[in-house]
Amino acid sequence: MNEIDKIRHSLAHLLAMAALEYDPKAQLGIGPVIENGFYYDIKFSEPFSDNTLPQLEKRMRELAKEHLGFKRIPVSALDARGQFEGQPFKLDLINDLEAKGEDITLYSTGDEFIDLCRGGHVENTSEIPANAFKLSHIAGAYWKGSEKNAMLTRIYGLAFETAEQLESYEQRQLEAKQNDHRVLAEKLDLFTISNDVGKGLPLWLPNGAYVRKQLEDFIYRKEDSAGYQYVYTPVLTHKRLYEQSGHLSHYRDDMYSPIEIEGDEYFLRPMNCPHHHQIFKHRPHSYRDLPMRLAESGLVHRFERSGVLTGLIRARCFTQNDAHIYCAQDSLGDELIKILELFDDVYSTFDIKDYWFRLSLPDFENGEKFGDIEDRKTWETATAAARQALETFGAKYVEGGGEAAFYGPKIDVQIRNVNGKEDTIATVQVDFYSAKRFDLSFDDAHGNKARPVIIHRAIMGSFERFFAFITEQYGGKYPTWLSPTQAVVLPVSDKHMDYAKSVEANLRAAGVRVNTDTQGQLGKRIRQSKESKIPYILVVGDKEVDNNDLSVDSRDAGKLGNMTTADLAGRIKKEISSYK
Amino acid sequence: MNEIDKIRHSLAHLLAMAALEYDPKAQLGIGPVIENGFYYDIKFSEPFSDNTLPQLEKRMRELAKEHLGFKRIPVSALDARGQFEGQPFKLDLINDLEAKGEDITLYSTGDEFIDLCRGGHVENTSEIPANAFKLSHIAGAYWKGSEKNAMLTRIYGLAFETAEQLESYEQRQLEAKQNDHRVLAEKLDLFTISNDVGKGLPLWLPNGAYVRKQLEDFIYRKEDSAGYQYVYTPVLTHKRLYEQSGHLSHYRDDMYSPIEIEGDEYFLRPMNCPHHHQIFKHRPHSYRDLPMRLAESGLVHRFERSGVLTGLIRARCFTQNDAHIYCAQDSLGDELIKILELFDDVYSTFDIKDYWFRLSLPDFENGEKFGDIEDRKTWETATAAARQALETFGAKYVEGGGEAAFYGPKIDVQIRNVNGKEDTIATVQVDFYSAKRFDLSFDDAHGNKARPVIIHRAIMGSFERFFAFITEQYGGKYPTWLSPTQAVVLPVSDKHMDYAKSVEANLRAAGVRVNTDTQGQLGKRIRQSKESKIPYILVVGDKEVDNNDLSVDSRDAGKLGNMTTADLAGRIKKEISSYK
Repeated sequence: MNEIDKIRHSLAHLLAMAALEYDPKAQLGIGPVIENGFYYDIKFSEPFSDNTLPQLEKRMRELAKEHLGFKRIPVSALDARGQFEGQPFKLDLINDLEAKGEDITLYSTGDEFIDLCRGGHVENTSEIPANAFKLSHIAGAYWKGSEKNAMLTRIYGLAFETAEQLESYEQRQLEAKQNDHRVLAEKLDLFTISNDVGKGLPLWLPNGAYVRKQLEDFIYRKEDSAGYQYVYTPVLTHKRLYEQSGHLSHYRDDMYSPIEIEGDEYFLRPMNCPHHHQIFKHRPHSYRDLPMRLAESGLVHRFERSGVLTGLIRARCFTQNDAHIYCAQDSLGDELIKILELFDDVYSTFDIKDYWFRLSLPDFENGEKFGDIEDRKTWETATAAARQALETFGAKYVEGGGEAAFYGPKIDVQIRNVNGKEDTIATVQVDFYSAKRFDLSFDDAHGNKARPVIIHRAIMGSFERFFAFITEQYGGKYPTWLSPTQAVVLPVSDKHMDYAKSVEANLRAAGVRVNTDTQGQLGKRIRQSKESKIPYILVVGDKEVDNNDLSVDSRDAGKLGNMTTADLAGRIKKEISSYK
Repeated sequence: MNEIDKIRHSLAHLLAMAALEYDPKAQLGIGPVIENGFYYDIKFSEPFSDNTLPQLEKRMRELAKEHLGFKRIPVSALDARGQFEGQPFKLDLINDLEAKGEDITLYSTGDEFIDLCRGGHVENTSEIPANAFKLSHIAGAYWKGSEKNAMLTRIYGLAFETAEQLESYEQRQLEAKQNDHRVLAEKLDLFTISNDVGKGLPLWLPNGAYVRKQLEDFIYRKEDSAGYQYVYTPVLTHKRLYEQSGHLSHYRDDMYSPIEIEGDEYFLRPMNCPHHHQIFKHRPHSYRDLPMRLAESGLVHRFERSGVLTGLIRARCFTQNDAHIYCAQDSLGDELIKILELFDDVYSTFDIKDYWFRLSLPDFENGEKFGDIEDRKTWETATAAARQALETFGAKYVEGGGEAAFYGPKIDVQIRNVNGKEDTIATVQVDFYSAKRFDLSFDDAHGNKARPVIIHRAIMGSFERFFAFITEQYGGKYPTWLSPTQAVVLPVSDKHMDYAKSVEANLRAAGVRVNTDTQGQLGKRIRQSKESKIPYILVVGDKEVDNNDLSVDSRDAGKLGNMTTADLAGRIKKEISSYK
C-alpha cells in the first residue's frame, strides 16, 4: 500500500475511535480507503447530523497528535468474536472471513482501540499530516449495500499528503460543481427538465438549442466533405426489424414497452443501425458504390432508471451523431484511419487534446451474449483490424475486455471530465456480423456476391453528452462561433440609445448575433453581461458617439480599447468562420 | 343540373342498360354523377373483370346512336316495387324514399329501360358526344358504404363535352401519375417505405434527405432572421402534459397507445405546442420579452389507419416546421401580418403562386368539442383578428365553418396539387385559450399579470408534405440549389478521365455538388443523367481538354455551348445563393 493510502486508512481508524468516544453505543461497519480519502460506515444510537463532523474531526486531530502506534494482532475467529461483542457488523464480517477460511487480524491503535482489519497503516499517527485531511460529508449506506439490511451513516473524509494538495483538490471540486452542465444550464438558460414532460426528457431552451445546432451544422459540414450521405429514418419501428437485428433478444432491457398499432407491436428504436441497413438494402450495389457512408442525427430512446438520470449526460432520449460505413474488407483499414482523422479534426476544434481510445475486446467467457456469433475468428479479424488502424494512425489507446457490443469489438473514445473522471464520449465499432444477419451484399470486381464490413461510428457520440462535456470544459464560456449571443451593446444612457441601435443593426447585418441591453444601471448591465459569459461587451457613450466607434471588452482577451463597428464585425466574423 | 352533368347522368343509364344486356341477372345499385364523369354500382351474377369494359363501352355508344329519349314517370311506392322485382338494391332505395315520405320517380330510356331516378338527363341520347366518354376502371364498393352489406362492382366512367376535353384530362392524369411523389421517389431515390420498419414510417434516402435538409436550412435562416428562436423538445411525453393540454380528452383517437415507464404512462406527442408552452413557462416574462417566437423542426406521431397512408402526404410520423408566438393582444395583428409576409416570401421562392387562405371558423353547434371554452366571445375576438390581418395584408382568402382546432379558429393555407385538387399545406391558428389552461402570463407595462395570445403556425406545414408537394410541382426537376447532384461530368472516353476528374475537383472545391460518371457508353450516360434530372451535364472530350473548358447542357436552359469551369461554377453558385 502506498504512503497516502496508509495515511487514509489510518485516518479511518481515528475516525472510528472518535465516533466511539462520541457515541459509545455506536456500531462500526467498514472503513476503507477510497479515491482522495476514506470513509467509515457507522450505526449511531441516535440520529447523526453533519453538524457533528467538526467535533469528530477535531478529536481525530488530537488523537493523531498522541503519537499512537498501530499493532498487528493475528487471532482466531473465536477470539475475534470475543473482542467485538455488541458490534454485530464486525461479528458478521468475522463470520464471512471464517466461512471463506481466511486469516483474521486485528489492529490496535495505541492502547485504546482495536479494529478488525487487514492492515496497511502508518507506523505511528504522528506521521499523519495534521492539516491535510478533513471530514467532508455524510450519506446513508445500507450494510453490505443491500436494502434488506440496516442503514448506516457513511462519514466521508478527504486526505492528502500536504495541506496544499487538499486545498487544490477542494478548489477543483468547487470549480467542477460550478461548471456542472446542470448548474450552467440554470445560469445560462441552456436546457430544462419539466416534471410534466417527464424525467430524463430534456427541453432545450433557445440558448442551448443554438449551441447544439452549431454542433450539428459543424459535423454535417465535416461529414458532407468527407463523403458521408445524410438520411432521415423513423424512431418508431415495427418489432420485425429488431427481431431481425437481434436487439429484441440482446438489448430488450434497454428498450421501452411496445406501442400497438392495428394489432402489431412497434418499438421506439434504441439504435439506428438496422434502419441504415434497410437503406443500404434498398438497391443492389456494386463494389464501385463502396464505401457507402450513411449518416444521421439519429434520435434514439433507451431505458434508464429514474435514479441514474443525470441532465444531458444520461437521459432517456438522445440524438446520436451516428453513421454506418459499408465497405469491402480490403478498405476497412483505410476507412478506420479516415475516422481517426475525423476525430482528430473535430476534437481539435473543441480544444479536446486529452483524449484516448479504448479498444474493447469481446468477453468470450460470456457464452450467452456471443452465442449468435458463428465464427470466433471473425471477431478476431475485426479486433486485429481495429488494433492495426490505431497503430498505423499512431493513436493513443489502451485495450480492455468484456465491453464489446453484441455484434463486434468496439473502440471507445475516452476523455477526462471536469471532475477528473474518465468518461466515454464516442464510439467506433467494427461489425463483420450484421451484413450476414441482414443479408447485405455487393457485387465484387469479379461479379461475385460479397458481404460488406460495417463500421458503426459516432464522432460526437450523442449531441446531448458532447454538449454537456464541452459546456463543462468551457465553463459555459463558449467560443464566439458557438455563443448564442456574441455581443451586447450597452448604451451609457438614454441619449446614446439611437447610436447603440444603429451599432446593433450594423453588426446584425454583418452576421453577428447581438442584442442591445438598456434596462437598469450600466454597472448592473455590465455585470449581467459578464455573468451571461457574452464574448464581447460594447459600451457606447458620448465619446463613442463622437468618434463613431465602440469601447470593446472581450471576455477572453480583456479590454481591447476602442474599435470601429466594421473592425469588430470583421474580428467576430473571422472567429465564426474559423470556429474560434 | 348543368349540361355536362346531364350528359354524365344519361351515360350512367346507358351503362346500366348495357350491363343488363350483358348479364340479365345483374342487380343495379346507384349511378350518380361525379367529378369528371359518373359511375354505376352493379352486382353481377358472375365475377366481373375490367376486360369487359370495352364491350360495355361499345354497346353504350351504339345505344346513344339509337336516339333514345328520356321520360319522367312519377309513381307510387307500390308501383315502383312492382317495376323492380328481382332488383333488391332498388327495392331497398324505394323503402328509404317511402320512409322519408319523398316522391318517387322513374325514368325511361327509349322503350327498353326504366330506372329509379331523381332526374337530370339530356332529352335524347343523340345529344351525347360519341367520343367524349370512356369507361375508365372498376373498383369494389359496399352497398351503402357499409362492410356489413353486399360488395358490388363500381364501374367508373369519364365524360366531357368534347373529345379534346377528355384527351386533355387523360393527359393531365397521366402526368400527375408520372409526377406522383411516390413514382418520382422510386425513380430518383428520394425515400422508401420498408415493410420491416413499418407502414407509414418512411426512410429518407440520401437524395430525398438532401432536399429536405435544404428546406430545413432555408426556413431556419428565414425564421432566424425574423426573430424566431429554435428549440428542441422530446417526442416522448408524460401523460400529465396531454391531460393538461386537453389532447387526451379531445385528440386521443389520433394518438398512439401509451408506453409505460416505471408505472407511469408516456405518449408519443401528436403536437409540439404543450412543450413550447413549458419553455415559455420556464422563466417569468415581462412585456419587453414579447413577442417570443419559439420554433422547432418538431417530430410528431399521429395515428392513421393503414388504408389511408399515402407516401409522405399521409404518414404516421412527420416533422412540422412548427412555431408558437407568444404576444400581447395588441400586437396580435402585427404578428399575423408578419406571418403572412413570411408565407409570401417562402412560397415565392418555390414558385408557389396559386395559394390562398381558408379561415376556418368554429362550429358552435358541436357543443361537446367546444365545451371547454368558457367564453364564446374569445373565439369571436380571435376570429375577427385573423380576418382583419388577412384583409390588411390583402390576402386571397375564403371562409369556412366547422374545421377549427379545439383551441381556436384556424387559417389553412390551400394549394392545388398536381391532380388539380385542393389541399391544405400549412396552418396558422390563433389561440386565446391555452395561455389560461397552462397558466402562462407576463407582466404588462403596468406591472399587472396578463395572458399572452398564442399563434400556432407552420409555414411549410410538415417537411414531408411540403417536400411531396414541391417534388410533384417540379416533376422531380428540383432547382439547382435543391438538387442532390447539381452537375455530372461525362468524359467521352478513358483518355479524358484525368481532365474530368480535375473538373470535378475544381467544381467541388467551389461548392458544387458534382460527380463524374465513367461507366458505359456516353449516350447511355447522357440518357441516365437526364433521367436523374441533373441540372448540368458536362461532356468533356478532346476539344474540351484542348481548350480547357466544358460542353455544358443545362436541363432548364438547353445547350449552353462551351464554358470554363470557373464560369460554370460562378453560374451554379449564383443559383444556389439566390435559391434558384
